[in-house]
Amino acid sequence: MNYSSSFIPTLREVPADAVIASHRLMFRAGLIRKLANGLFAYLPLGLRSFRKVEQIIREEMDAIGSLEMRPPVVQPGEIWKESGRWDAMGDGMLRARNRLENDFVITPTAEEAFTAVVRDELSSYRQLPLSLYQINTKFRDEIRPRYGVMRGREFVMKDAYSYHADDESQDETYQAMGRAYRKIFKRCGLTVISVKADSGAMGGSGSEEFMVESEIGDNTLILCKSCDYAANVEKAACAPDYSPRFSAELARAAAAETPAFEKIDTPNVKTIEELCAFLKTEPRQFIKTLIYRAVNVELDLSAAPGCEKLERKKPAPEAPYVYPEAFFAVAIRGDLDVNEAKLAALVKASEVSLAADSDVRRLTNAPVGFAGPVGLNTLPVIADYSVAGMNDAVTGALEKDLHYQHVAYGRDFTCWMMEDIRTIKAGDRCPVCGGELYEKKGNELGHIFKLGYKYTRSMNVSYLDENGKSQVPTMGSYGIGLDRTLASVIEEHHDDAGIIWPATIAPYHVVIVPIKYNGEVKTASDKLAAELEQAGIEVLLDDRDERPGVKFNDADLTGIPWRVVVGDKGLAQAQVEIKRRPEKESRQIELTKAAAELALKIREELAALNG
Amino acid sequence: MNYSSSFIPTLREVPADAVIASHRLMFRAGLIRKLANGLFAYLPLGLRSFRKVEQIIREEMDAIGSLEMRPPVVQPGEIWKESGRWDAMGDGMLRARNRLENDFVITPTAEEAFTAVVRDELSSYRQLPLSLYQINTKFRDEIRPRYGVMRGREFVMKDAYSYHADDESQDETYQAMGRAYRKIFKRCGLTVISVKADSGAMGGSGSEEFMVESEIGDNTLILCKSCDYAANVEKAACAPDYSPRFSAELARAAAAETPAFEKIDTPNVKTIEELCAFLKTEPRQFIKTLIYRAVNVELDLSAAPGCEKLERKKPAPEAPYVYPEAFFAVAIRGDLDVNEAKLAALVKASEVSLAADSDVRRLTNAPVGFAGPVGLNTLPVIADYSVAGMNDAVTGALEKDLHYQHVAYGRDFTCWMMEDIRTIKAGDRCPVCGGELYEKKGNELGHIFKLGYKYTRSMNVSYLDENGKSQVPTMGSYGIGLDRTLASVIEEHHDDAGIIWPATIAPYHVVIVPIKYNGEVKTASDKLAAELEQAGIEVLLDDRDERPGVKFNDADLTGIPWRVVVGDKGLAQAQVEIKRRPEKESRQIELTKAAAELALKIREELAALNG
Repeated sequence: MNYSSSFIPTLREVPADAVIASHRLMFRAGLIRKLANGLFAYLPLGLRSFRKVEQIIREEMDAIGSLEMRPPVVQPGEIWKESGRWDAMGDGMLRARNRLENDFVITPTAEEAFTAVVRDELSSYRQLPLSLYQINTKFRDEIRPRYGVMRGREFVMKDAYSYHADDESQDETYQAMGRAYRKIFKRCGLTVISVKADSGAMGGSGSEEFMVESEIGDNTLILCKSCDYAANVEKAACAPDYSPRFSAELARAAAAETPAFEKIDTPNVKTIEELCAFLKTEPRQFIKTLIYRAVNVELDLSAAPGCEKLERKKPAPEAPYVYPEAFFAVAIRGDLDVNEAKLAALVKASEVSLAADSDVRRLTNAPVGFAGPVGLNTLPVIADYSVAGMNDAVTGALEKDLHYQHVAYGRDFTCWMMEDIRTIKAGDRCPVCGGELYEKKGNELGHIFKLGYKYTRSMNVSYLDENGKSQVPTMGSYGIGLDRTLASVIEEHHDDAGIIWPATIAPYHVVIVPIKYNGEVKTASDKLAAELEQAGIEVLLDDRDERPGVKFNDADLTGIPWRVVVGDKGLAQAQVEIKRRPEKESRQIELTKAAAELALKIREELAALNG
Repeated sequence: MNYSSSFIPTLREVPADAVIASHRLMFRAGLIRKLANGLFAYLPLGLRSFRKVEQIIREEMDAIGSLEMRPPVVQPGEIWKESGRWDAMGDGMLRARNRLENDFVITPTAEEAFTAVVRDELSSYRQLPLSLYQINTKFRDEIRPRYGVMRGREFVMKDAYSYHADDESQDETYQAMGRAYRKIFKRCGLTVISVKADSGAMGGSGSEEFMVESEIGDNTLILCKSCDYAANVEKAACAPDYSPRFSAELARAAAAETPAFEKIDTPNVKTIEELCAFLKTEPRQFIKTLIYRAVNVELDLSAAPGCEKLERKKPAPEAPYVYPEAFFAVAIRGDLDVNEAKLAALVKASEVSLAADSDVRRLTNAPVGFAGPVGLNTLPVIADYSVAGMNDAVTGALEKDLHYQHVAYGRDFTCWMMEDIRTIKAGDRCPVCGGELYEKKGNELGHIFKLGYKYTRSMNVSYLDENGKSQVPTMGSYGIGLDRTLASVIEEHHDDAGIIWPATIAPYHVVIVPIKYNGEVKTASDKLAAELEQAGIEVLLDDRDERPGVKFNDADLTGIPWRVVVGDKGLAQAQVEIKRRPEKESRQIELTKAAAELALKIREELAALNG
């Protein structure tokens, strides 16, 4: 391709709203243009790289036997009403209504559409497992779209959905997807961090997120310095300060030398900070007790303290029984924070939040700030593991301006449940190897889920098993964002001068820069381009009537892996200059050997990434 | 690909709403499924063929130097408001409004998006011509979607847009697009009819439609039996009964032997049929005179009869002057019909329609049914060429219950304009060769337009010419519907048993049918599949545990070009049976030669279509 025949509008200026490297460089290198907030047009150079990402994903999906199909982008509202997500998806889902008053969804994801197709075709266990995917346009109405295509409104996603007769089959496909994802990211030259993630609003359990480190990442990752443990902070665990098996008996024994607990006056002291100052001690010495309100609690509370009168209800015929509202006291060491995602998962609630002051007063019989586990029997106490080893602690005394000191777990109070519900922080210990944990910001590129029966049940999917009995299949879903993957490649591979494409994603493999595109230089440049193209190498020939400096800058900016400079001086010695984009140094090479040498190098680079 | 690992749910039944072959067969062969009215999911087999159409189009666009890019499917309403089409597109354009009250369009076409991108990047004449395209999802809210993907709501279109400094450059690209389109349809195995079309609401002049014959076509085509003349009936011309150069003088001379015209009583006679019965003559003897109302007339009427007091206005600052309303009398031979599209084009009106009775009474000073060109001076008379040779005709006399007879054009009346404004019918004469014209129903697959300045002016696109002067580029647009192209391939290539794919579009080239997939038959089938795939041939291996009859039926239904049957009997003689889908007869071939022979045949078939 001749540069002058293409459409590569490079820019010197950086758009004002471009704060991250990929956003800046995708604009400056002429890969994208903004049509409106969060809506971008891929220009020819950007689309070439985009399609390479697409093709890599397609190959790896095909390789594990997932079958490509394509439902429409604009989908009937009916199937979203069937699954219950018409309401659940909220304002982030773009909807449209036509002149006939039909409701449509501009699809943000496609569990419903795939399941609707599979439902009509599935009859026998012989058809399972079934794994289907699409690579297609999605829309999510981000309130604040930013960072270019990293967080746009419209984007392209590869989304796959699988259907299985049993969990073992589901797990096989899930593992195969995980391997395919690792291969895809490797081929794109991306370093990903695989983390166990909270599966959030998607429902179901068993999920893995593929993250890239990013200064603007919307996820906090917890990583271990000594092993490959990695987790989203929403789910991250740590080595308990005491073993989960640490019993109340052992705790009592450990408290043998602690004096009996006693009430102390703490006038006008409410926060842990004030208490620390007042008692001249540290937050680690306190047992913080927080009252939480949980909604739609699935956990059985029939034997829990204070829950005797709670009634369970079924919000929908297909749904499990839940307690519409329940309260919990959560005890945790004073220097730690409660992880609400862990707490919600523990009690199987759709939502947890700190209880209103009025509820706290009612349940603790004291003003806010004086809750404590000792003598608390109006609601179930859930303690974090950190509490297990505390045998000389300070806690609220369930009375205004009073605390207890010398409180020991196991001796002075126990709890209804003890679990890991703390928010992990840098410096905590790895739950796998005990090494030191640290934090990173991450952006999610891919996510694989075991969904279970959420959609297959709500949408009435069934098949006949070996015994002719009707069964509901279990389901998995697996997504990769293409735009975000492409932008992340640039985040990982660039320098001050521009993009440094991995060979697999580069829009062209070689850029030929004739010093002046005429005479012998033109002849030699054209010939070299033809030889390279003959060898299957993709070539951009900068035939523009521009100064060499301008061409060199654009070559660096657009990040083509290899640059060949053809000039009169070199040609006088039958030589051209070749340079790898990431390297500073160029070298002279015989013109007649250039095509073969470059083709070899590029094939090596491709093989190293694809292999 | 093994059949059992794919997802090809073939059906024996025909869906009740499938009235055309492609719709029936795409369902039955498991190519598509319906998600809602006009919204379809392509299943794996259908998507494979779809992608082949897509790739053919991409290759031919790339070959003529058009550059692929991709704006979003969901576009900001603002650019549609700029071009004026936010209002003009009506209810057929799907719109959505998000939580921030931003207006979006689910794009039915992309003149605005491409022009918005080009506007920001175009600065110099050196960047022109510029030809860009996308292959992307579109949505048009058909009121009655039907015929499967032939007329769906969501579809994929290849749409290209070109920008030029002058008409010559525009014409070069236009011609290149026309050649590329012909190549594309040839490669798809499609017989297309190229017709000059009315460019309708798209604006501008110079356009060509690529049609396929179809019983359910929404266009009427006029074709010549003797030459390759073809036109949409909206624009079709015919050989004038008299030369356009036929002058009023010659007409007068021709009328030398006609008696002077005279008034005759025609009580209670209003229609041509009644008049024919009354006068015992034929419609060809009458000059029918119809009063038309035209809206937004751009043609200069300052010298037209009865138009002295009409005032011109500018509907918008950028728009040309128009008469908001004007009336015309249209005279045409009694057996012919006025073509309103031709009439509108002639007077440059946005719309023409028969005038209201009250307007007819006011302008002709007579009841409806007695208009005639003799003595009519209250409005301009436009005559069809058919009137030129009428020298003994009957017409209305502008008085109730009275007509004139012995009326001669040129002697008794002339007209303000004489042009071809008749609707062409089967039996008329070809305007090119004089041969007989006939009619066909057609479906539009592609359309190329010279748009002119409509979008570049309304959206303020400009560049600096050689002299540093700001200029507005002229623009073309070029579309092909992919879904409709794929369905049309099936319309043209099928029989009672199923689809008969051209090799270029076939989802697989060869289907291998083992009589029973085990033992030696399995070994031979697997080996043959591997050999064919090694040779670059796409193979579907029907490994299902089904009766041979079921497999044969599915092979015919899915239309794979070549079928190989592997059975014990044949293998005993080291032979397999091969059969081309369109042929009845199969033949035995040595197993060891089968792969090479099939690969050769398929390459020949591909070359014949692609060549």
